[in-house]
Amino acid sequence: MEKYMKLAIELSKKGIGKVSPNPLVGAVIVKNGKIIGMGYHERYGGFHAERNAILNAKEDVKGSSLFVNLEPCSHHGKNLPCVDLIISSGISKVYIASVDPNPLVNGKGIEKLKKNGIEVDVGLLSDEAKYLNRVFFKYITKKLPYVALKVALTLDGFIADSNGNSKWITKQNFNVSHSLRNFFSSILVGANTVLKDNPRLTCRNGGRNPVRIVLDRDGITLGRGFNVYNEEARTIVFSKCCQGTLECYPETEPFDILSRLYNLGIDSVLIEGGASVLSQFLNFADELHLFYSTKIFGRGLSPFENIIKFVSQNMEFKIRNLKRLEDEFYLEVFRNV
Amino acid sequence: MEKYMKLAIELSKKGIGKVSPNPLVGAVIVKNGKIIGMGYHERYGGFHAERNAILNAKEDVKGSSLFVNLEPCSHHGKNLPCVDLIISSGISKVYIASVDPNPLVNGKGIEKLKKNGIEVDVGLLSDEAKYLNRVFFKYITKKLPYVALKVALTLDGFIADSNGNSKWITKQNFNVSHSLRNFFSSILVGANTVLKDNPRLTCRNGGRNPVRIVLDRDGITLGRGFNVYNEEARTIVFSKCCQGTLECYPETEPFDILSRLYNLGIDSVLIEGGASVLSQFLNFADELHLFYSTKIFGRGLSPFENIIKFVSQNMEFKIRNLKRLEDEFYLEVFRNV
Repeated sequence: MEKYMKLAIELSKKGIGKVSPNPLVGAVIVKNGKIIGMGYHERYGGFHAERNAILNAKEDVKGSSLFVNLEPCSHHGKNLPCVDLIISSGISKVYIASVDPNPLVNGKGIEKLKKNGIEVDVGLLSDEAKYLNRVFFKYITKKLPYVALKVALTLDGFIADSNGNSKWITKQNFNVSHSLRNFFSSILVGANTVLKDNPRLTCRNGGRNPVRIVLDRDGITLGRGFNVYNEEARTIVFSKCCQGTLECYPETEPFDILSRLYNLGIDSVLIEGGASVLSQFLNFADELHLFYSTKIFGRGLSPFENIIKFVSQNMEFKIRNLKRLEDEFYLEVFRNV
Repeated sequence: MEKYMKLAIELSKKGIGKVSPNPLVGAVIVKNGKIIGMGYHERYGGFHAERNAILNAKEDVKGSSLFVNLEPCSHHGKNLPCVDLIISSGISKVYIASVDPNPLVNGKGIEKLKKNGIEVDVGLLSDEAKYLNRVFFKYITKKLPYVALKVALTLDGFIADSNGNSKWITKQNFNVSHSLRNFFSSILVGANTVLKDNPRLTCRNGGRNPVRIVLDRDGITLGRGFNVYNEEARTIVFSKCCQGTLECYPETEPFDILSRLYNLGIDSVLIEGGASVLSQFLNFADELHLFYSTKIFGRGLSPFENIIKFVSQNMEFKIRNLKRLEDEFYLEVFRNV
């Protein structure tokens, strides 16, 4: 059974960068040991995965099993709820990887399926399914975007040398790095990064561009033609000096900024800032993506230099992924909740 | 053929901690596809691996093949050179993983075998064999001990928090850490580490104790009953204030200290010191063993704070090993020569 759920999860990933702030969902329909239908949630506002799988089915789905990584919806949206569709289709068993924590669903879909005589199995590959939709789960339950920090540092933990130079500490494996820009809905930097590096902040390995966010309290980057303000993608500025036609908001505190993003429907943010921005947002971070080179600076700029913590404090983060990338390595940690 | 060389290498490792400053050598004798003899260099001053393998052989070795990870010796030591023993034994083929860079050997053993009609194959698993005897190779060619630095640090590169506390940044996987103490002949710390932690510096997972070395230029730890001066193991002090019955030398500069250790027959040193000692010896380091926790300090003590290097400089070290140890990770890098 796992292989079908695995396939549903893989299918769901085709929606990365396209369905936000909806969850990633894939569905597989199996009858007599044969896959007869597959589908996934393809774009925001599009059909749900279950509906697509049923529409794509090559045989009558009556008596079949449905594998779906997220609990089918039971609330009325643009279309008939998936639960009603499943019931009327004659599907007899539904495997669900994880419950949908959306207060509108949250077990109600499962309940309705059971009441209508459909066998329901919950929990197959649930860890994988929860990881897959970690952005959606945070967004829907905490009413805040999912926050990821990305840092490139030396073996001894510096993000710039003592002259302030950071180009290039790591080669940062282009693909991992740009895949993050496709995965997260927005990318955030501080004004200093714009002044210093003039980045475009676009996704350049085939994915869609994230919304670009600049924290520029004092407006020092405004009206100066920096790349981040070009037409390639939407840009949002947080500043006390909003001007012109820019999309600009006055918040300056991390929590207020994140709340504003939530209200704008932005479900996740990848923070690539310098030490000031990284330090400000560390306490809000759900995960960190760290790219280490084997360089050693001795002295330099530390990523979280505006923070002071002690050895006696608990570990805030746990390792999710550790991977060698040629002569560098990549570490992904997540908040230990 | 690789499997026999692999076995020879595994056998040689039984000599770790016992043969220094001799190389680690294992030998396997194969006849008609069957292993008929095995041996290794068991202790300093003991028989060489080749001799042990021949002595242990259960059949006549005439016409057999010998697998040995290091070129057999051709110079007269306490016993007949291994090369002469091999020739007289009737062994017909010798597989050698790596040439012995010892100026007394360095190809002469191979030459003599060939001259006497023995077929010689050089290079099977040579990378593995060179790594195995990296200590011996450095010691014999550079006339300096092999230098390894061991550091426990946070995700953001600190070896102590801003209060100076370092207990415990990592759990440091007891076994990896104490295996290093068995592998290297000596362990070196600065006076500050003795004052602060009062460590015993012994090997406590079944290996032999390394020689303990304390850098205490001004003699601030002397005559005060610190653990490092107890009877558990030999201790050498480098100080301007040598006193009493201590084994004590006056050198204070890293190169002079390392030269002294070479002259004392100490082939390798594991440096576990604080920032001052680590910074002093970084330029002499052949490899670094880094234990990272997922803690973040923001600010604190950097391991190489007395050094300043820049992003434009080349990478000095390359990754040899990267391994997750539960909630921590271990990185081994070696000098990129």
